[in-house]
Amino acid sequence: MIKKSSTKDLALKSNERLFLESKSPFVPKKYSNLKPNKFKIYTFRAGFKKKLDDLLVIVFDDVVNSASAYSKTSTPSAPIIWDKNNNKGKVKALIVNSGNANAHTGKKGIDIINKYVTFLSKLLKCNKSEIFVSSTGVIGELFDPQLIINQISNINNSKTKNIIDAAKSIMTTDTYPKVSIGKTKIENQEVKVYGFAKGSGMISPNMGTMLVYIFVEAKLSKRLLNKLLNNNLNKTFNSISVDSDTSTSDTLCIFSLNYNELKIDFNKIKNFKKINLLIYELMHELSLQVIKDGEGISKLIKVNVKKCKSINQAKDISFSIINSPLVKTAIAGSDANWGRVIMAIGKSKKLINQSKIIIHFGNILVCKNGSKNTKLNLLKLNKYMKNKIIEINVNIQNGDKSYTAYGNDLTYEYIRINADYRS
Amino acid sequence: MIKKSSTKDLALKSNERLFLESKSPFVPKKYSNLKPNKFKIYTFRAGFKKKLDDLLVIVFDDVVNSASAYSKTSTPSAPIIWDKNNNKGKVKALIVNSGNANAHTGKKGIDIINKYVTFLSKLLKCNKSEIFVSSTGVIGELFDPQLIINQISNINNSKTKNIIDAAKSIMTTDTYPKVSIGKTKIENQEVKVYGFAKGSGMISPNMGTMLVYIFVEAKLSKRLLNKLLNNNLNKTFNSISVDSDTSTSDTLCIFSLNYNELKIDFNKIKNFKKINLLIYELMHELSLQVIKDGEGISKLIKVNVKKCKSINQAKDISFSIINSPLVKTAIAGSDANWGRVIMAIGKSKKLINQSKIIIHFGNILVCKNGSKNTKLNLLKLNKYMKNKIIEINVNIQNGDKSYTAYGNDLTYEYIRINADYRS
Repeated sequence: MIKKSSTKDLALKSNERLFLESKSPFVPKKYSNLKPNKFKIYTFRAGFKKKLDDLLVIVFDDVVNSASAYSKTSTPSAPIIWDKNNNKGKVKALIVNSGNANAHTGKKGIDIINKYVTFLSKLLKCNKSEIFVSSTGVIGELFDPQLIINQISNINNSKTKNIIDAAKSIMTTDTYPKVSIGKTKIENQEVKVYGFAKGSGMISPNMGTMLVYIFVEAKLSKRLLNKLLNNNLNKTFNSISVDSDTSTSDTLCIFSLNYNELKIDFNKIKNFKKINLLIYELMHELSLQVIKDGEGISKLIKVNVKKCKSINQAKDISFSIINSPLVKTAIAGSDANWGRVIMAIGKSKKLINQSKIIIHFGNILVCKNGSKNTKLNLLKLNKYMKNKIIEINVNIQNGDKSYTAYGNDLTYEYIRINADYRS
Repeated sequence: MIKKSSTKDLALKSNERLFLESKSPFVPKKYSNLKPNKFKIYTFRAGFKKKLDDLLVIVFDDVVNSASAYSKTSTPSAPIIWDKNNNKGKVKALIVNSGNANAHTGKKGIDIINKYVTFLSKLLKCNKSEIFVSSTGVIGELFDPQLIINQISNINNSKTKNIIDAAKSIMTTDTYPKVSIGKTKIENQEVKVYGFAKGSGMISPNMGTMLVYIFVEAKLSKRLLNKLLNNNLNKTFNSISVDSDTSTSDTLCIFSLNYNELKIDFNKIKNFKKINLLIYELMHELSLQVIKDGEGISKLIKVNVKKCKSINQAKDISFSIINSPLVKTAIAGSDANWGRVIMAIGKSKKLINQSKIIIHFGNILVCKNGSKNTKLNLLKLNKYMKNKIIEINVNIQNGDKSYTAYGNDLTYEYIRINADYRS
C-alpha cells in the first residue's frame, strides 16, 4: 500500500535538490558575547518586524568621539542624509530601527527622524547632533515616529542588554548575528575593541543594508579615529561584494569610549600601529561574517589578483571577477571554469597581456600564459571545487601591486530571496 | 488505485513551477528566409557539435567591401586577433565554426586558423587576408583544423543553402535562429539588406558569443560601410545586456555586395540617410532577437532614461538599472520594486538630485520626486508587471539627453544554464 503522504514527500525531495538550506553554511558554531562598559545597550519590540526586537538604542555614559563612513550612492536614505548633515563626530546615543529603512521617503523621512531624535535628545539632555541614527528594511515607506518614541520613553526603566542582543535587533534577512571581539596589549595595558554588524541580506520585498558599529575601549581623538577608519575600510568592507548592488543605507560608525584610566599616547607611531592592526583585524573579521551571510551563499569566493601595474588595476580586475554572474554561477556548480575568469579579466577593460596570465584555483594551476594547463589533475581539481571556500589566484605578471576581494556564489536561493512573488 | 507514474508526475510539476520553459517565450511564430544572390551559403557537420551542422562557409562571387566591430575585451579569442591583424575590409569568404570558440588557446589557436585559412584561400584563389573567420563555443580547448579542411575540400560539390540554414549552423545554446530582412526604395530602385545572428546564449560549460553578419545588396565604399556600422552600433548591439558579462569573441561584420546594376550615389546625404535608417532597423531588430533569447529569459526589460545632463549619464544610469541583479530578480518575480531602480540609479555614481526622480512602469507612475506615488493603483500595476515586456521609464529632470537599454530578467533558468554541475 502506498501511503498518502508519499507523493508529497517526493515533491519535497525534488525541491531540496534545487534549493540550498535557507541558512548560510557559515553560521558560526559559537558566538562571542559581552556586556559592555561605559555604555548601555537597550533593545525593544517597536512593531517594525513581527514578534522580534527591532529597535536598538545605545546610550554612552559620556559623549564620545566617532568617525563614520557611508554608502557612496547618490540616492542615500534619510538617516544617511541626517547623519551627514548633523553629526559632528560627537555621539551621546545611537538609535537603529530594523524593518523600515526610511529610504526614498523625501522630506517626510527627515521629519520622522527629527521627531524621535528631538524626543531622545530632551530625555538624555544632549544636543540633537549627538544622536547618531540608522535604519534598515523596507524602502519607500513612511513610518510613524511614535513607534520609536513609545519605546524610548521608558528607557530608564528598561533592562540593559549585551552585544549579541544588539546584533540580533538590527538583523533583517541575516541568518546569524555578527559580532567580533579583539584585544591587544599596548604599553602593558589591555586595549579591547568589539563591534557588531548586519549584513547584505535583503529584506523582502526591498533591498538591504550593511550596518556596522565598532567600539574602542580607549580614548582617541576624532582625527585618529578617522585615520583608523580610512586606513582599513578599503581592505575590509570595501573589498566585499554580494551582488555588485550598492545599498542606499550602508553605514559604518566607530566610537571611541572614554577610557580615561588608560594612559596611552596614540599619537606615538608604535602605539597607533598596534591599535590600527587590532581595528583592521576586527573589521576584516566582521566583513567576512557579512559576506559569509550573503544572500543564497553556498560558497565563499576569495579572489587574489597579484603582480599588477597599480592597486587600482588589481582592484578593478578583482571586482570584475567577483561580480561576474558567469564566474559566480560556475563556482555554485563546483565548476573550475577558468575561461570565465579570463573573460572577467578582459571585461575589466584594463590593458593587460593575456598571454602572461596565470590562474590557480587554490594551489592548483589551471591556466598558464593565458592557455589551459595541459598537465592538469582533474580529479584533484574537482575535489577542490567542492570546498565551501574557493580561492581564485590570478597573476597578471605586469607589476608588483595586489588586491584581494571577497564574494559569494550565485545560486537558486539568491533568486528565490530576491524575486519576490508577492503579486 | 494510484497509477505508478503519478508520483513522478507530481515531481515534474514541482519542477515546472521552479523552472521556466527551456525555450525563450519570444520564439518567433514564423521566420524570414531567402536564398541570397551574389554569394553562396554552405553548411557542414564538421564534428564540433553532436549531430548538427556546425560549420558555415559563405563564398562571395567577387571580393566585397566589409566593415567590422569586435568585443571590447582585453582578452580576445584567436579569431578576433586574426581578423584584426589580417582583414583589410576586403572579403572573399566567411568561415564560422560553432562548438569551439578557439579562445585562450595562445599561439596554437592562431596556428589552427592559419591552417584552414591557407587551405581555403588556395581553393578559392584569393588572399588569406580576404577570409574572415569567427568561432563560438567552448573556450580554452584546441581543435584539429583538419575537421574544417575535410569539409571545405568538397565545397564545390556541396549544396548551397539559405539564410535560415546559415543562422542555424552558428547557434550554440540559442533557442531559435535569428534572421532579419529589410528593404527600401532609393531613387526608385529597391535596396535589400538582411542579416543573421547568434545570441548571448552560453555553451556549456563555457561562455558564449554574439556573432552578427549583415549583407547589403548595394555597392558601398569601405568608408561608408564603417560609417553605417558606427552610426548604429551604440543604439543597437551596444545597448543590450544579458548579464553584464563581455564575451571574448563578439563579432559583427557588414558586407556590401557588388550590386553594380544599382545606380545610386550613397555619398548623397538623402540616399545615405535612407540606407542608414534601413541598417539601423535591421540591427535593432537583430539585437532584440538576441536579447529576447538571453539565457533564462522570462521577460524582456526596456529601460528608458530621459532628461539627463549628457548621453553618457543617461547610458550609465540605463546600464546600472538593466544590469542590477536586484532589479532583474524583481522583474522575474513580477514585482514593481521601484526602490531597487532608485538604488541602481544611485549606484551609477552619477551626481543626480534624487528628489527630482520620476519613475513609471509602463505608463503607471510609481515614484514621483524620489518618493512613492501615494495614489498608486496597485491592481493595475500588478497586472502590468505580469507582461512579457516591461518598460521602466526614468526621468532624471536634469537636462535633455536620453538613452534606451534592453535586458532580460534573472531567473532560476539562468542559474541552471550556467551553474554547470559537470563534476
